[in-house]
Amino acid sequence: MPALPFSRSEYDRRLALTRKAMEAAGLDVLVVTAPAGMNWLTGYDGWSFYVDQAVLVTPTGMPFWWGRLMDANGARRTSYIDEDHIIYYADRYVQAADCHPMDDLADKIRELDHGKNRIGVEMTAYYYSAAGHKALVAGLPDATIIDASGLVDWQRVVKSDEEIAFMRKAARISDKVMSHAMEIAEPGMKKNRFVGELMKAAIDGVDDAWGDYPSIMPLLPSGADASAPHLTWNSDEFRMGEATFIEQAGCYRRYHAPLSRTIFFGAPPDHMKAAADAAVAGLNAGIEAAKAGNRAGDIAAAMERELWKVGIERPNRCGYATGLAYPPDWGEHTVSIRTSDDTLLKPGMTLHFMPGLWMDDWGLEITETILIKQDGPAEALCNIERKLFVKG
Amino acid sequence: MPALPFSRSEYDRRLALTRKAMEAAGLDVLVVTAPAGMNWLTGYDGWSFYVDQAVLVTPTGMPFWWGRLMDANGARRTSYIDEDHIIYYADRYVQAADCHPMDDLADKIRELDHGKNRIGVEMTAYYYSAAGHKALVAGLPDATIIDASGLVDWQRVVKSDEEIAFMRKAARISDKVMSHAMEIAEPGMKKNRFVGELMKAAIDGVDDAWGDYPSIMPLLPSGADASAPHLTWNSDEFRMGEATFIEQAGCYRRYHAPLSRTIFFGAPPDHMKAAADAAVAGLNAGIEAAKAGNRAGDIAAAMERELWKVGIERPNRCGYATGLAYPPDWGEHTVSIRTSDDTLLKPGMTLHFMPGLWMDDWGLEITETILIKQDGPAEALCNIERKLFVKG
Repeated sequence: MPALPFSRSEYDRRLALTRKAMEAAGLDVLVVTAPAGMNWLTGYDGWSFYVDQAVLVTPTGMPFWWGRLMDANGARRTSYIDEDHIIYYADRYVQAADCHPMDDLADKIRELDHGKNRIGVEMTAYYYSAAGHKALVAGLPDATIIDASGLVDWQRVVKSDEEIAFMRKAARISDKVMSHAMEIAEPGMKKNRFVGELMKAAIDGVDDAWGDYPSIMPLLPSGADASAPHLTWNSDEFRMGEATFIEQAGCYRRYHAPLSRTIFFGAPPDHMKAAADAAVAGLNAGIEAAKAGNRAGDIAAAMERELWKVGIERPNRCGYATGLAYPPDWGEHTVSIRTSDDTLLKPGMTLHFMPGLWMDDWGLEITETILIKQDGPAEALCNIERKLFVKG
Repeated sequence: MPALPFSRSEYDRRLALTRKAMEAAGLDVLVVTAPAGMNWLTGYDGWSFYVDQAVLVTPTGMPFWWGRLMDANGARRTSYIDEDHIIYYADRYVQAADCHPMDDLADKIRELDHGKNRIGVEMTAYYYSAAGHKALVAGLPDATIIDASGLVDWQRVVKSDEEIAFMRKAARISDKVMSHAMEIAEPGMKKNRFVGELMKAAIDGVDDAWGDYPSIMPLLPSGADASAPHLTWNSDEFRMGEATFIEQAGCYRRYHAPLSRTIFFGAPPDHMKAAADAAVAGLNAGIEAAKAGNRAGDIAAAMERELWKVGIERPNRCGYATGLAYPPDWGEHTVSIRTSDDTLLKPGMTLHFMPGLWMDDWGLEITETILIKQDGPAEALCNIERKLFVKG
């Protein structure tokens, strides 16, 4: 049995929650294909999600790990799943024109005598492809296939104490990376060299909080490029008179604490200073509104009121649930911080409160990962001053 | 117009190839959702593939970029697409329970008067989800939706001279990273610190070849963990008596040159030395067989003959097309190096020749990125000695 990240009772808790939700949804079997869900349920961790794989939750007993033959050893070495519940498909199914790995999963489900059951699948999950769904449905003609997107994700939304401890370690890494970023950034520095420094700082980690890979690479567009939220880097140099936002997340054992700050070289224009002040006021107001019993949308409303004061109307949501994640996203795809989201906030929820400003020819991000508390406002997990950083 | 990675005539070549393949497949419109295909056709580059996006190729004129409102600025800043061909969906579609971004794409396709056309989609692409496909099909009741998986990928399989120049830059980065790895690795070193060093070396790059993020993070399991090909890292220390393989790829502007080597601390056991010698002999034989006019399967057959001599029968393919890629894979999902693959090798194809050995309680990888030449055997793009590295 490998050394698991969490106690066995934590995994039992997760499985029990999942089975309860399955029962409520009328499911006999759940096919969990999202890597984060697979990890959350079993501990399984590997960069194998580029081929089809799943955890099968049946009504009783241990879940099954199913994947590519060569990845079975990864399941043996990272999850609690017993040998007789590790099942796999032959390599010839991989990226083949004449068959699909999901043909094999359908066979396995029938062999396990679940071929006539009500089977949930994650239609919205990244690595559950349209082709895979088609093959699975075709291979299980007597089953009822039901869209169970988000079923596991919603069980993950309130973090346990063990998980919050991981989030705090990730936050220490985010703090270290952002402090280092603000220390070394200077006009004339090539952005790829800057990112190399940040990645090294992140992966080195802090004390026993070693750095895992983040599910999104650092985003750090400068000047007019910062009008686009999702550009990565190149070898351009930092320039005087430009703002660069730095969006990154420390990651500890797949748990993320995203944190963004913005740095300006020279004297920032008044409109940018005003926007930064409004963003900080909005963050403060949003954190104040992020109380157990309030709605997720209340956070957004509090933020938006501050931005309206300086004439900024954001057309985008301003955050989402975060925590356990795999590429391409550190969001958990459950709660969104937008006025239309009526999710009741509960203690233990962790959200990336992310009111990025992407204007016509500049951008600014000041963001926090927040933890909903039993009483009072949310706690920001990171400890970097909430402001526009200015240098040079 | 942004500075594009390639000449405009290169993009014209790609679009013409794609349209020819569309015509052969009887398609009026192609919905390209794979980020690599989007980049290859238009230059578009951003970490926005965690939400739905696509390039639409219609029978004539400039392709359309379609994505999330906030990412339109990224399209403006990285692709050649004109303003009137950049179309987008509102943020409320993102991860919403009551609508899907593909609802909007269906609307857009109908507005563009293609609602009754034959429309190709990439059923096997990572970010084309089962839910997205369902929404698109429902939104285009008068269209004929056709699985065009791989259509663009197969146009990408022979690299142009401009692309090969990028691959060579990526290979210089791989060389640098692997040399650095072999120099600094030592017993007692924590693996996360080791990876931090490698990532920094990779992103710093070599001269004007600045390092982009690789589509797979470094894989480097040690000892018995190396029986599992896809484990990343933790804070364990390198130990005497253990082999660690290091699988990584230098990346230049999304072009990859994967390269793996293995290091053993202490005196390697005879069975491992024999396996390494056979792997090297197999690589040499495979590269010799990797000639224009031969089949991809011939490379695998030549490799396997050498491994059989030491009693190793690999159940897995031993490589795949590589080059332009986005997470989660640097493979291009076209050619596989396995005996059943009858693809004729053509000059300009680039393959990761990857006969990893993942045994019951150890593993070994010695791999090369190879370029098929007009005449003679393939060229290995990297320049690291082909052997088991031994230290301590």
